[in-house]
Amino acid sequence: MTRVLDAVNSPADLKGLTSSELSKLAEEIREEIISTVSNCGGHLAANLGVVELTIALHSILDSPRDKIIWDVGHQTYAHKLLTGRRDQFASLRQYGGLSGFPRRSESPHDIFGAGHSSTSISAALGLAEARDLAGEDYHVVAVIGDGALGAGLAFEALNHAGHRGTDLLVILNDNEMSIDKNVGALARYLTQLRMDPTLYKARTELENLLKQIPAFGGIVHRVVDKLKDGLKQVLVPGMFFEELGFSYYGPLNGHNIGLLRWGLRDALAMKGPVLLHVVTTKGKGHPLAERNPRQYHGIAAASSGENGPSNSRLFGETLCRMAKEDDRIVAVTAAMAEGTGLSVFQQQFPDRFFDVGIAEQHALVLAAGLAVGGKRPVVAMYSTFLQRGYDQLIHDICLQGLPVVLAIDRSGLVGEDGPTHHGAFDLSFLRIIPGLVILAPKDGKELEDMLAWALNYEGPVALCYPRGSLTPLGSEEPIALGRGQRLSTGQDLNFITLGSMVGTCQEAAKLLARQGIDAGVVNARFVKPLDVELIRSTPGYLITVEENVLMGGFGSAVLEACPNGRLIGRIGLPDVFIEHGPVSVLHEKYGLTPEAISAYAQEALRREGRKSLG
Amino acid sequence: MTRVLDAVNSPADLKGLTSSELSKLAEEIREEIISTVSNCGGHLAANLGVVELTIALHSILDSPRDKIIWDVGHQTYAHKLLTGRRDQFASLRQYGGLSGFPRRSESPHDIFGAGHSSTSISAALGLAEARDLAGEDYHVVAVIGDGALGAGLAFEALNHAGHRGTDLLVILNDNEMSIDKNVGALARYLTQLRMDPTLYKARTELENLLKQIPAFGGIVHRVVDKLKDGLKQVLVPGMFFEELGFSYYGPLNGHNIGLLRWGLRDALAMKGPVLLHVVTTKGKGHPLAERNPRQYHGIAAASSGENGPSNSRLFGETLCRMAKEDDRIVAVTAAMAEGTGLSVFQQQFPDRFFDVGIAEQHALVLAAGLAVGGKRPVVAMYSTFLQRGYDQLIHDICLQGLPVVLAIDRSGLVGEDGPTHHGAFDLSFLRIIPGLVILAPKDGKELEDMLAWALNYEGPVALCYPRGSLTPLGSEEPIALGRGQRLSTGQDLNFITLGSMVGTCQEAAKLLARQGIDAGVVNARFVKPLDVELIRSTPGYLITVEENVLMGGFGSAVLEACPNGRLIGRIGLPDVFIEHGPVSVLHEKYGLTPEAISAYAQEALRREGRKSLG
Repeated sequence: MTRVLDAVNSPADLKGLTSSELSKLAEEIREEIISTVSNCGGHLAANLGVVELTIALHSILDSPRDKIIWDVGHQTYAHKLLTGRRDQFASLRQYGGLSGFPRRSESPHDIFGAGHSSTSISAALGLAEARDLAGEDYHVVAVIGDGALGAGLAFEALNHAGHRGTDLLVILNDNEMSIDKNVGALARYLTQLRMDPTLYKARTELENLLKQIPAFGGIVHRVVDKLKDGLKQVLVPGMFFEELGFSYYGPLNGHNIGLLRWGLRDALAMKGPVLLHVVTTKGKGHPLAERNPRQYHGIAAASSGENGPSNSRLFGETLCRMAKEDDRIVAVTAAMAEGTGLSVFQQQFPDRFFDVGIAEQHALVLAAGLAVGGKRPVVAMYSTFLQRGYDQLIHDICLQGLPVVLAIDRSGLVGEDGPTHHGAFDLSFLRIIPGLVILAPKDGKELEDMLAWALNYEGPVALCYPRGSLTPLGSEEPIALGRGQRLSTGQDLNFITLGSMVGTCQEAAKLLARQGIDAGVVNARFVKPLDVELIRSTPGYLITVEENVLMGGFGSAVLEACPNGRLIGRIGLPDVFIEHGPVSVLHEKYGLTPEAISAYAQEALRREGRKSLG
Repeated sequence: MTRVLDAVNSPADLKGLTSSELSKLAEEIREEIISTVSNCGGHLAANLGVVELTIALHSILDSPRDKIIWDVGHQTYAHKLLTGRRDQFASLRQYGGLSGFPRRSESPHDIFGAGHSSTSISAALGLAEARDLAGEDYHVVAVIGDGALGAGLAFEALNHAGHRGTDLLVILNDNEMSIDKNVGALARYLTQLRMDPTLYKARTELENLLKQIPAFGGIVHRVVDKLKDGLKQVLVPGMFFEELGFSYYGPLNGHNIGLLRWGLRDALAMKGPVLLHVVTTKGKGHPLAERNPRQYHGIAAASSGENGPSNSRLFGETLCRMAKEDDRIVAVTAAMAEGTGLSVFQQQFPDRFFDVGIAEQHALVLAAGLAVGGKRPVVAMYSTFLQRGYDQLIHDICLQGLPVVLAIDRSGLVGEDGPTHHGAFDLSFLRIIPGLVILAPKDGKELEDMLAWALNYEGPVALCYPRGSLTPLGSEEPIALGRGQRLSTGQDLNFITLGSMVGTCQEAAKLLARQGIDAGVVNARFVKPLDVELIRSTPGYLITVEENVLMGGFGSAVLEACPNGRLIGRIGLPDVFIEHGPVSVLHEKYGLTPEAISAYAQEALRREGRKSLG
């Protein structure tokens, strides 16, 4: 039996389909997503939730002339399937293949790239304003989840769009019912009231009638105004959005394509900013994912070899151990309890656990307040999301020297999520902040030791560790402020390194030994304060190695401390946004394997040899 | 006649004062602020607006046991006068004197430092949660302006505090009536209704009555729920805050101490998060400031020698000239039209001007959207506030390579506003972002040329220039991507520098010439891409000079390009938060004067001479 999907090469091909064909298409897309994600890994629950919404949007709108902006972007698999990327879909999230997020370079239908949440309304407003200035008339639609709507950025955009009154459709994809737990029979009834042309007209007439009530002046007039507001409140749910200047519609059943198409047509015909509330079920159509959307949020590729206790898990368990001894310890996360390993803390210490939602800025200032109040807050966050709290880290935590521990997970390359999610910049942007201590552990045991040390330090500390796990390297030694660790001494060459690259450099040193080159490894431990004395007392040539951009990174810090020419190379990530792909593949491409490091070192030594020969 | 103020050495001294004494105190504080600000410069309008509120707070609360957190913090002059700093008040904003903002190191009454806006609710929530965990019972009060409340960070905090239900008082200091233009007779009436114990009781009974209406189930039940909400809307203004989980009170006249004390007592007695809406007049008591609060927001010290067209003005005028020729140009600012020089653009091109309020994150993504829509957005922002949009700059603008121009004003030291406002980090945190072009002009003409160049570049550009004006240096030469400018060639030594330090280095070279040292100056123009060829072809020893932190800064970029030992020194800001004071004093202290640079160079050359001898 031929699939409807196989005949859809662009959104135009949806226009002639019957409603039963559209329903069939939804089932086919769902199957395609489940089978591909089982192979390639990726976001399952979110994508299954928006299949009907995506079909409805593309069957009504004329993309790319009309612009659809997907917030976060991890829910765009159906969108990719419907916009000419069906044949490449099997390459999803694989090296060289389709991105797991919208990418402008991938398709004209991906009008605005994403990865981090809550940007879509701002971007949509910018596009809509550009459209109006140019006198054009295309539609601009942002699709945003209820979680993403809680971020300050989304509020700033709603606030501004409501103020401007720009024509713009924001679709609230409410998949956890967390915005308003009371939506139900009446709300649906009211939606029909608004959506049905006849009843809509009745409501408009009622509003006009209210406007005709004569103005009494003074208090009476204001009482009437208030009564009107009160009536509006009765007729219109979503006053929150209405007060921000949006027209609120909904909620609609997000799995009924016909209803969605009807609601979309109506909403797109309205003037000004409109919020269309759509209720979807995460993981729809996949019984396990529907029951456990959190667990099925993202799943790893079938072939991925991830195992052993991850750094996240080690972090969470260590923190729990320490929290038992020290009741000052509290934990803060921004919608990442599971990902950062804090769920175990949440279970054991519910009173001392704060999940602020997608609100990194608030998470950091909240932690600053907790620290001022005598607590020892640990903020667990992915490196890439910490970029959102940069000002708060500088202005609220470090300027005040407050004892907040940042547990920075996903520092370094993250793999398949790609350029929006790599933690490629943290050592560089963190080390310029006065008073911030920065550590990176070489293995799990060092992570535990560093966390324990950080919780006893009287100032801000950033602890950066990568996704997944680190191979145990032994060589335990107590942590001391600003002290690195000499693991071996090379007479020819020494690697100055830290974090995930310590083990790699030890392997590289072994390879070099086979070539008759005596190479040592210094585990710097601290990016800041840097163990300048240890580095200066290290003999021979030096090469730094880090899983961070070379620009302003750890190697740059070593160079600042040793500008005398002995540092003959810095190995790290180049000055580009790193693409998606397995970390091992990326390590190979960017020269972060033992083999590549060994080859780089031999070449650097040859160059120096030639120089000294003159 | 003795002043009431002279007997107030701590908030405790307010407790016994009569209401006429408190009123007299308000007048005395107002006089003290006006006379001191006229001498020292500072924020006038905001401080005059909160005199009565500050007195009321300190007469009711028991600071520092009770915690008052001032948002932004530029309105804390009365607070400083009442908390033991009256005798130092004449040193306000002067080098070594009182800060113009709350500082934890300055007084135990400054429980949380500020400078940037919208942090207070987060910090207050953190403190309140710490209090509850410790089983203590002090009050936590945040005072936030209506402008600051529009920032995403404040929304994140309201959203979280409302969800938690923590005891916490947020005072909305509404001084522009911008939150709700309809507050008036009814609203005041309703306030009295809520504040009057008898009527408050009546309202509570009404609510209880509504709760007793039997549950009908299904639609009828929901209609009743909606009717209750409607009634609530009639009785309670501020539904926006109520929907976020806050109890809303107000608005109160913020210049009536008695009313404020009464309202504060009631609000502090309530459980859960409370928002008290207080209406104040910016510049209250100063006729000129009341009429022009924008102009009297901040005033310069009487002795300050600022004159000549500032960089901000040059920027604004140049942009207007260019916008006449290129209708793709649009301008975006975050509540800084005046400060960034964009007001002239706002007047000339109102349709192409976007002031988003205090919402830096949204400003940048909005600009990204405008760029995708074919516009050439210029975002004008102070360097220090750009820290708030760091993620959006990386994730939305640079990763997508969008042609957005960042006009970064107040790059470098800003003077009296101090550590929260210095633009000391921008070259470091910007240069690590792939694809971002970064320029800094040596003088006004170069600023104009660079802006023109940036607007024709097909990618993101950051243009960093300092507060005030730059001395014209001549030596005009067209801008070309990644090309610096050799202003002179020294056989002994060359300064590699840019921006505000180019003129300073030229002076330093003259001083060195008197010592028989031939020093040249290279104006690098671009931090990124760096003109590596020009630098490498420069003879003799090199010293970099920048008004930015040395950590990862411009000098570090030069070092990365020239790690061979020829770079014998990097001059810039040390790894500390720089205190407040006149820029000239700070330049002297941190070695950024011609004399200090010349002395540094001589010492560096002597050191190298000894090395080559030794």
